[in-house]
Amino acid sequence: MKIVKNKKVSHEVLTQFGCEVLDKTSMSKEDAQILVETLVEADLRGVHTHGMNIFPRYVRSFLQGIINPTPNIKLVRDEGAISVIDADNGIGHVAMNYAVKKAAQNAADYGIGMTTVTNSNHFGAAAYYVTRLAEKGFIGYVVTNAPAILPAFGGMVPVLGNNPFAYAIPTNGDPIVLDMALSPVAVGKLRIMAQDDEEIPEGWAIDKDGKPTNKAKEAISGITLPIAGHKGYGISFINEILAGALSGSKVSTEIPRSGFSTHNPSSMDQFGVGHTVIAISVSSLIDKEIFFERVGTLKNTVINSKKADSVEKIYVPGEIEFERLHERVKNGIPLSEEIIQKLIQIGKEVEVSFPI
Amino acid sequence: MKIVKNKKVSHEVLTQFGCEVLDKTSMSKEDAQILVETLVEADLRGVHTHGMNIFPRYVRSFLQGIINPTPNIKLVRDEGAISVIDADNGIGHVAMNYAVKKAAQNAADYGIGMTTVTNSNHFGAAAYYVTRLAEKGFIGYVVTNAPAILPAFGGMVPVLGNNPFAYAIPTNGDPIVLDMALSPVAVGKLRIMAQDDEEIPEGWAIDKDGKPTNKAKEAISGITLPIAGHKGYGISFINEILAGALSGSKVSTEIPRSGFSTHNPSSMDQFGVGHTVIAISVSSLIDKEIFFERVGTLKNTVINSKKADSVEKIYVPGEIEFERLHERVKNGIPLSEEIIQKLIQIGKEVEVSFPI
Repeated sequence: MKIVKNKKVSHEVLTQFGCEVLDKTSMSKEDAQILVETLVEADLRGVHTHGMNIFPRYVRSFLQGIINPTPNIKLVRDEGAISVIDADNGIGHVAMNYAVKKAAQNAADYGIGMTTVTNSNHFGAAAYYVTRLAEKGFIGYVVTNAPAILPAFGGMVPVLGNNPFAYAIPTNGDPIVLDMALSPVAVGKLRIMAQDDEEIPEGWAIDKDGKPTNKAKEAISGITLPIAGHKGYGISFINEILAGALSGSKVSTEIPRSGFSTHNPSSMDQFGVGHTVIAISVSSLIDKEIFFERVGTLKNTVINSKKADSVEKIYVPGEIEFERLHERVKNGIPLSEEIIQKLIQIGKEVEVSFPI
Repeated sequence: MKIVKNKKVSHEVLTQFGCEVLDKTSMSKEDAQILVETLVEADLRGVHTHGMNIFPRYVRSFLQGIINPTPNIKLVRDEGAISVIDADNGIGHVAMNYAVKKAAQNAADYGIGMTTVTNSNHFGAAAYYVTRLAEKGFIGYVVTNAPAILPAFGGMVPVLGNNPFAYAIPTNGDPIVLDMALSPVAVGKLRIMAQDDEEIPEGWAIDKDGKPTNKAKEAISGITLPIAGHKGYGISFINEILAGALSGSKVSTEIPRSGFSTHNPSSMDQFGVGHTVIAISVSSLIDKEIFFERVGTLKNTVINSKKADSVEKIYVPGEIEFERLHERVKNGIPLSEEIIQKLIQIGKEVEVSFPI
């Protein structure tokens, strides 16, 4: 893997650049702010695949009319603790911002609230949405479906998305956040491993003939498997239903996947996927202090348990990302030369100069 | 592994035997029926670890007063779409029967309903509860915490339960049911593999020094890991919160685990764990016919996708278990000699003869 020097950029500068670029599309200033904040938070957390790295593709999709930059987001159903939102082919981040607020309102009123989103697109990092809920005292759960890249258990061709899902749990400090997909490794990372002819763990992939392989190269010409065999297959299948089918959205191979089969796509496909968000009001269920004590007992037992020799510290889910976020808010976000070049390029295309 | 001839017993005969045995405890006939039905359904589905195999341990715990055979199940909170139930140290199955009905009622009223259960015990197979919800048109989700048998990611000692969770999705036919735990293999199965000095897949376990091992024998003296590395660790951690902390129940190493460390425990520990059930009313969110069409499209795409050479058929989650159930309802449940001996023994202890 090539070693590149990373330049540091403050999150404020990065956010401002993103908003200036989006100002050259027809997107509203408010929606632009939401979208860019979501991306920059992913960079702060060190999840660059869902950060500004992907921003130029969004911008081109807005300019080309593939994704609607000025969606008319509609509340299609709103009964009891349930709401349904039509994203009008807008970017997922903007629709989800609305969906999360609606679920939180329902949870405040009924103890639990649920919102589905249909007719939507890529929504970035699920962690962003559940974290907003946890900050307000709700347990957050978010799931989306996505272009099919994983086979069925026993299958050889892609029929299920990696279908990411996330939970956030409020605590006295940073929330506990789990954000994960059902694929064993990001496609981009596997490509780099294949270039270096690296070995991969058992169970990650099959080759083009459907046989298990431990070579990244053979995995690239074959297919990566869901995590944990039939268990990951099962979760991916259920997530496809909870996000896609339940919102009446596209599922499985109906979703375009050019962005996943091309190494360096310039824009983002119109997915037509769905998302689901559930908010649970902790204080409706239990005295908050008791809950915090219970979570604290669990956390302390786990992080103070006996470590393997090679392990320095045991982390709870999301803790590494929050450590990074706090450090990067102070000291700036290190961006790879590749990402910086992408941002300079999209800046050029809309006549906004990248500020470093 | 020893080959044993399995005798077939009809589910009606097995249910009647179970109820007769429980009639020798102080458990009510109604609760006994619920408990035995849950166990026999697990046997019908082929999940014998959660079937009548475990029944003698329950019975002795009732007789010894470890688990309360006559719990006063109380509705502690009941506001909006949220309910909280105190199981009064009864067996989980009985409390869950109540919790599932309450969640379904709340979902009928508000679109989504949630019930937590505290002060509870082993609840058997999670699939049973979500299936009851799916039969009534609800998407069901159930989670429990359990005695700590899994280490943290990077840890060497047990701090998290295998924390099973289940989903069921209503369809035009049998529901789609996913019921899974976060451990890679049942402890009982691993013990048999160790006796036969079998190899185990990469990532299943570490030895007593914390090093990865592919030998079942070394795994037994070490510890099995959560599935899929940090991802399974993350889900197990979250489940411990959703079921245990959120219900104010015991978490992590607070839960007794003698039943997991002893090969053949005669009774069941008093766990003090919690469970959570969520019911989602599909028709509150979407026209049912559209939902069935979307799920059907997903299912058909998946089961008709290209198979690996060695694979005869692609199944959707829960399908194998329903195939077994339908066959066994007709032709009887094959029980191993070991299970039959256990049932004969518990029958002797309470003076009920096993009917085969």
